[in-house]
Amino acid sequence: MATAAKQRVEPASCVGGDAALARAFVFLGKRWTAVILGILGNGPTGFRDLSRAIGGISDSVLSDRLTDLAATGLITRTVDDGPPITVSYALTDRGSALIPALQQIGLWSREHLSSDPS
Amino acid sequence: MATAAKQRVEPASCVGGDAALARAFVFLGKRWTAVILGILGNGPTGFRDLSRAIGGISDSVLSDRLTDLAATGLITRTVDDGPPITVSYALTDRGSALIPALQQIGLWSREHLSSDPS
Repeated sequence: MATAAKQRVEPASCVGGDAALARAFVFLGKRWTAVILGILGNGPTGFRDLSRAIGGISDSVLSDRLTDLAATGLITRTVDDGPPITVSYALTDRGSALIPALQQIGLWSREHLSSDPS
Repeated sequence: MATAAKQRVEPASCVGGDAALARAFVFLGKRWTAVILGILGNGPTGFRDLSRAIGGISDSVLSDRLTDLAATGLITRTVDDGPPITVSYALTDRGSALIPALQQIGLWSREHLSSDPS
């Protein structure tokens, strides 16, 4: 009984059955989205550098993800007229606010999934 | 210059181009997985209660997700012989370690996505 009570978390920090969490994972769940945000967490990045840093992503998928993230207001796209013309992507405040949670998930994965045989 | 330097994050907390983050999102990205973990973060829960709390998930998908999560070592499945026989699911230590990050994402979503017109 005491143990069960101890395990209970405060309502304010509950995530159970959470429509907000489900909504976040509708786009975070798309392959590469979290990784793109993670890279942009290190600073503004151009398309080619993003592609290189991710590895294994096609240009069309990367382009789709960047369009989605911009539409959701998590990143901005800035064109520098150059020459040469360069395009760079950067987190908005809304996007930056996600980075600490993604860092935690990255650390968790390194600690708990790296040596996973599956 | 000073601003750029300030924005740079410590290498230890970098998530950019992160294989570990990508690996975590391979299963977190599956629809409902994060929501299931969030609910179990409130304590051990039976299949029916999980289904009710999530809403809109089919029994076969819920069953698949629970099997995946058990295979990845994030949850345990315990059968109580009863009567009546009941099955409950609970987070392992590995699963519990993910909860703070999911709570952050839930809070972020409530703050930044709730009033989103899209």
